Amino acid sequence: MQIGIIGLGKMGFNLALNLNRNGYEVVANDVNAEFVQKIAEQGIQPANSIEELTQQLSGRKVIWLMVPAGEIVDQVIENLLPYLNSADIVIDGGNSNYKESKKRYNYLKTKGIDFLDCGTSGGTSGALNGACTMIGGDNEVFSYVEKVFKDISVENGYLHTGAAGSGHFTKMVHNGIEYGMMQAIAEGFEVFEHSEFDIDFQKTAKMLNHGSVVRGWLMELTEKAFSKDPNLDTIKGIMHSSGEGKWTLETALDLGVPTPVIALSVMMRYRSQMEDTFSGKVVAALRNEFGGHAVEKK
Amino acid sequence: MQIGIIGLGKMGFNLALNLNRNGYEVVANDVNAEFVQKIAEQGIQPANSIEELTQQLSGRKVIWLMVPAGEIVDQVIENLLPYLNSADIVIDGGNSNYKESKKRYNYLKTKGIDFLDCGTSGGTSGALNGACTMIGGDNEVFSYVEKVFKDISVENGYLHTGAAGSGHFTKMVHNGIEYGMMQAIAEGFEVFEHSEFDIDFQKTAKMLNHGSVVRGWLMELTEKAFSKDPNLDTIKGIMHSSGEGKWTLETALDLGVPTPVIALSVMMRYRSQMEDTFSGKVVAALRNEFGGHAVEKK
Repeated sequence: MQIGIIGLGKMGFNLALNLNRNGYEVVANDVNAEFVQKIAEQGIQPANSIEELTQQLSGRKVIWLMVPAGEIVDQVIENLLPYLNSADIVIDGGNSNYKESKKRYNYLKTKGIDFLDCGTSGGTSGALNGACTMIGGDNEVFSYVEKVFKDISVENGYLHTGAAGSGHFTKMVHNGIEYGMMQAIAEGFEVFEHSEFDIDFQKTAKMLNHGSVVRGWLMELTEKAFSKDPNLDTIKGIMHSSGEGKWTLETALDLGVPTPVIALSVMMRYRSQMEDTFSGKVVAALRNEFGGHAVEKK
Repeated sequence: MQIGIIGLGKMGFNLALNLNRNGYEVVANDVNAEFVQKIAEQGIQPANSIEELTQQLSGRKVIWLMVPAGEIVDQVIENLLPYLNSADIVIDGGNSNYKESKKRYNYLKTKGIDFLDCGTSGGTSGALNGACTMIGGDNEVFSYVEKVFKDISVENGYLHTGAAGSGHFTKMVHNGIEYGMMQAIAEGFEVFEHSEFDIDFQKTAKMLNHGSVVRGWLMELTEKAFSKDPNLDTIKGIMHSSGEGKWTLETALDLGVPTPVIALSVMMRYRSQMEDTFSGKVVAALRNEFGGHAVEKK
């Protein structure tokens, strides 16, 4: 089977290699010519434009997008449309908002083009060696490409989650869970760090990952991080985010569902990005107003 | 090596079997004669009293306590003391508060008795087939019984965490992390449950446990729970707790360290135990006072 890949960033590049190793005839394109050159060096068929990519695919085309979420997805779809025929399949494997994916599914439906939204987890190593994929869209379309998801994922690591949008929805919630789990692990190590004991972070993470209740991939990564930098002295505690935790929280708010831990995990990321807070100034000023408590001057 | 076990509940019983299978000569006691009878049926040497247990141990005695945290630990220690000699070793393998463990270490030191605090994770299956153990106490004492911890734990699943108290401290923080991770997973499934999509909880948990970032033992248990009861229709969402999350939070407060996710996880457990809340009544009444908003009458 032929597969076109558009977007050769960290995820797309590894996915192309994964597909190629699994016997797929991959044609790969990126706006960055350097990435196209690099993938060609890996023995994968390069395409210098979206037009060229589509020309190298025959029959019912399967095109996997691995581009940044947002308008770029719409732009790539618009650029693709002139070269697609009825029942060609566009898979969005990126981190798109599920509401956008539902819209894109409906929009492409009006053009006779099939669409699957595929949430992809497992990081860049997963994309290369076996990902975890969750796919939303029509049964017939999913069945047509099911083997692709099966082949690029770890065993039991793919699922047709349901109607259009459900793949990216499931991935979004997965990320919300991830935010909470990471914050929980991090808070535990914050307590370790401030404690009266001389806790060895790496050894503790390693031990916790062998037989304890909290064992799992995130604890493995915790050990790995401490193995490189025993006290994380070389990095700042600034936590960026790609938006999926925020979307999970927004969805929970729309549904009227309490998710306090995911909410606080998102808020702690924002707090970490601020050196000082205005709310802190307000509270300090108020304590000074009512009780004469000292404020720390700038 | 001989080991005395006091406390044959779910954890102690399995630990006795685990030790026995690993070639230790186990002598087991519980206040409940039925448990003593049951362990004897497993080919393990029973002891009908603490005195009898100590009489069956020779040389430098090693006695593992697996009794409920709190005063019972002190009572058992007091009952043991008349039969112990200098340098005998008492291991508290239960979920004791680390501050109590430090006190017990110091108290037993005045009697010439050695003490190790051992946090034990991995649940009852871990106690039987390979636990995760984190041990606080003196180097010499730990070294004397290190092989015991190595044998009953999974590979790489034991650690001498440091000074007296650090074993139970590490286990406590582990539980705090566990609270946060469980709440994060649970909130994600709450969003799944209320969503517009028809999410299959078991299949989703299974998929998430194969290749995703959030894979781990808790996600395995999530799948297992849904495999038994696809929508958890048969149970109530009341979350009890054994106190270790509360202790983690208390410790964080004492240290002045922010742990919002662990804090909210504890609070959500308390909330789940209340059918209605007084705070809810207060807010409803206030909204009625200032805006005439409707309240729901009893």
